[in-house]
Amino acid sequence: MALPKSFQDLVNNLTILPGVGEKTAERYVYSLYERDTQEIENLSNSLIEFKKNIRNCTTCGCLSDSDICEICSDNTRDKTTICIVEDSKSVFSIEKTKKYNGYYHVLNGLISPIEGINPEDLNISTLISRITDAVKEIIIALNPSIEGEVTSLYIQKILEKYNVKVSRLSYGIPMGSDIEYLDPIMISKAWDDRKVIS
Amino acid sequence: MALPKSFQDLVNNLTILPGVGEKTAERYVYSLYERDTQEIENLSNSLIEFKKNIRNCTTCGCLSDSDICEICSDNTRDKTTICIVEDSKSVFSIEKTKKYNGYYHVLNGLISPIEGINPEDLNISTLISRITDAVKEIIIALNPSIEGEVTSLYIQKILEKYNVKVSRLSYGIPMGSDIEYLDPIMISKAWDDRKVIS
Repeated sequence: MALPKSFQDLVNNLTILPGVGEKTAERYVYSLYERDTQEIENLSNSLIEFKKNIRNCTTCGCLSDSDICEICSDNTRDKTTICIVEDSKSVFSIEKTKKYNGYYHVLNGLISPIEGINPEDLNISTLISRITDAVKEIIIALNPSIEGEVTSLYIQKILEKYNVKVSRLSYGIPMGSDIEYLDPIMISKAWDDRKVIS
Repeated sequence: MALPKSFQDLVNNLTILPGVGEKTAERYVYSLYERDTQEIENLSNSLIEFKKNIRNCTTCGCLSDSDICEICSDNTRDKTTICIVEDSKSVFSIEKTKKYNGYYHVLNGLISPIEGINPEDLNISTLISRITDAVKEIIIALNPSIEGEVTSLYIQKILEKYNVKVSRLSYGIPMGSDIEYLDPIMISKAWDDRKVIS
């Protein structure tokens, strides 16, 4: 006998989740069977609500429930800085540090000739329009990968003609790591970015 | 900034899945954002359909789309055997072997005094009503755990007064294992269940 149809359908639909195969989906479905109807309805509704409401902020490109995201519509933030990130995940991660109070600009990708992602595919053109006289510093916070470096250089080049300071997050040895086990690139990056402490 | 509300809601609702915490749920949601509206709707609808349609078969207790499951309503199966299993998962696993063509009886649990699960909490009473003259063998296929053994003994006791053969799956060394690494209980079970081969 095959699995009951509504069971099998749910299994199939759950396998669109990343890393979820047939076995994991089955495990999820058995567990969902034990759940209240209310909980299942909540999950079902929140999927629809999510797809209906979530969009990219027209200003910064971050995921948002409205056309202008919460950060971009917050006038109390520091108007002198814009932090450039790869995706919305980075925004939420940086926000968790409570270290930064400026605005963001989400590229929604990185330049990658191999994957055929060119600068035009990224949310870069709107960045230029955001560089007003009020902006004093652009902080580049992209992943330290080849694609991140290439994108970072490209943005640096574009920003050359604007009277704005451009910085990037420091590279270095990660907290809690052991120098003995770090790879040479990481050590040499930390060497170049070393700080005078006295 | 907090995550957008419809994003956070979906994250929270996804954490009802077993083994899915905040981080995994966030990963799922980012990936769902990339999916077509149609796929999200399919997933959402299948959750509702599943909860609406799936129930326990009134005869055997297995998960089913209808009151009588596909196996119980199949008259071509072997009416002389009933296989007793812990849950519907076992039914689907045994069906995959294509070894067995009789009927099933799903207990939906095992006796466990520690967890306060008594024989009355299991789907045992309906089993008795199913033992007609046609039934010649009852195969007990419960997990070889303490709870499985206790439940197995309890069912054996109940079935004593019926003129029916009771068997259980053999215990033994699992295929592909190495005797060197098996625990003593497993070896001694395989010892007791040894088969004469010539």
